[in-house]
Amino acid sequence: MDKIIGIDIGGTKIAIGRADSRGNLEDSVRFPTDVSRGYRSILEEIIEKTSKLFERDSVKAIGIGCGGPLDSKKGRILSPPNLPGWDDVPLVDDIKGVFNVPVYLENDANAAALGEFYFGAGKDVSNMVYMTLSTGIGGGIILNNKLIHGVRDSGGEVGHQTILPDGPLCNCGNRGCLEALSSGTGIAKIFREKLASGRESIVTSWVKEPEEISAKIIADAAKAGDSLSKEVWDSAIYYLGIGISNIVTIVSPEMVVLGGSLTKYGESLFVNVRKIVKERARLVPVDEIKIVPAQLGDNVGILGAVAVGLLGDER
Amino acid sequence: MDKIIGIDIGGTKIAIGRADSRGNLEDSVRFPTDVSRGYRSILEEIIEKTSKLFERDSVKAIGIGCGGPLDSKKGRILSPPNLPGWDDVPLVDDIKGVFNVPVYLENDANAAALGEFYFGAGKDVSNMVYMTLSTGIGGGIILNNKLIHGVRDSGGEVGHQTILPDGPLCNCGNRGCLEALSSGTGIAKIFREKLASGRESIVTSWVKEPEEISAKIIADAAKAGDSLSKEVWDSAIYYLGIGISNIVTIVSPEMVVLGGSLTKYGESLFVNVRKIVKERARLVPVDEIKIVPAQLGDNVGILGAVAVGLLGDER
Repeated sequence: MDKIIGIDIGGTKIAIGRADSRGNLEDSVRFPTDVSRGYRSILEEIIEKTSKLFERDSVKAIGIGCGGPLDSKKGRILSPPNLPGWDDVPLVDDIKGVFNVPVYLENDANAAALGEFYFGAGKDVSNMVYMTLSTGIGGGIILNNKLIHGVRDSGGEVGHQTILPDGPLCNCGNRGCLEALSSGTGIAKIFREKLASGRESIVTSWVKEPEEISAKIIADAAKAGDSLSKEVWDSAIYYLGIGISNIVTIVSPEMVVLGGSLTKYGESLFVNVRKIVKERARLVPVDEIKIVPAQLGDNVGILGAVAVGLLGDER
Repeated sequence: MDKIIGIDIGGTKIAIGRADSRGNLEDSVRFPTDVSRGYRSILEEIIEKTSKLFERDSVKAIGIGCGGPLDSKKGRILSPPNLPGWDDVPLVDDIKGVFNVPVYLENDANAAALGEFYFGAGKDVSNMVYMTLSTGIGGGIILNNKLIHGVRDSGGEVGHQTILPDGPLCNCGNRGCLEALSSGTGIAKIFREKLASGRESIVTSWVKEPEEISAKIIADAAKAGDSLSKEVWDSAIYYLGIGISNIVTIVSPEMVVLGGSLTKYGESLFVNVRKIVKERARLVPVDEIKIVPAQLGDNVGILGAVAVGLLGDER
């Protein structure tokens, strides 16, 4: 069976794996991204680790998932904030030159979406939205079996829809983005602001510094009955539900797949999100749209990159 | 050259036309929809009028645009609110049985989107969102050259995204939908509520009854310097801009085409919408996404239906 190498490049770690065309991972390696070393040095390490996984006779393609902005068609990385010094670098050509197989590049959220679509939760549908709920909120959209790349690979930025026009400032510069309201970073920031304004919470006795407060701690405190934590967590899930109802209303996919660390904290997250979507998205048959957890877990990055390599220009 | 018949069925009027495959309308007829007559009688009139336009040798297909809900694959109309008595009727089979050419059905907003995509503003792009801003706000989305049908033909309901979670009640049952904030009906309702709460406006001297107040009158009064009208109109355009920025953020199309009566009232509508989208949609290259007026005018219904017939199962 043909094999594919998937390379998942993030700002904190890089994961490389070899899988068959059904997404069975045969071997993989993970190592930290020492961003201070810059592009050339990290590229050399990627090539060295890839060489160990590469089998000349069976590996037919290499897929790469990387943080954007990037140009998926030209295979270039365009100054991503989490990879300083990667300024308009020809990543695809640099790797293709070594291994001499087709190499394909996609932004990491789109790659993850393709991974879940081909190997995970979405493998039986043709229309799927993937959202990753973590420190930020990213996503990828697949409709009629094709990834929605968007203009300059900017499609699927589901975390930056405006949910609350006068809401909190988002890192992107807009106000009231879903990411500012419901991401891990957003939830922690809102919580800290409420503490600073005089609200009380058991969480203050759990941490030494307010900076230690995370969405996970807030979710745990909410479960333990802390009223401020419950208020902030429930509000985040409420806005998440609105964001998903908007996506569902606009593109009406067969399935919404939710991945990322936040989906693990609140057990009732899926129940509550489905309830809000049903209340809000009145013109779509919500009961026929599945809202489900991602299935690939920590392998979503590698398997997403594998899907990118497998599909090549057909994605 | 092959010809196509397009049939546009609305709750107040029906328009039927014959066009060539480039969308040049050769002949057409329009007549009121006497909904009280029910399905069979209106169907007979549609067939009679279509017969006069039908040319046996050249007409290769018939396309129909009709208000939903409907089943585009099965060619059935499913109890649309504006066509009482059309309960699960086999419209496509009923027309195919008479003319013996392929007949295709699409909901009216999706048909209009296809019309603008093939014959109008979008003919040079592959990814386009069409929005009709009228008494309601509808739309259709075409990505990778394919219409996004959605589950049970519910895709593209761009008017029912939530813009203001605690906003005014929408006809659909949700709160703060774009349609409740920025449609003709929504604008007039918000305006009347402000009058009822004691606000003053020159508009009260222009009409006999509050029910006569329309979005057009409010737009005219805003231009004449009426402060309440300007406030309500500007607010509607502000929320419209947010709605479009959300669509742009999620699917990042090459072009957004705006049609419908509202686009004709405020001269600065496009300028203001573009400004808001640029402020809000920070992660997409907004300068490369065209936001433009529809080009087909009053023929969008017929030519949309023609596009449905022309494309058939390829749409």
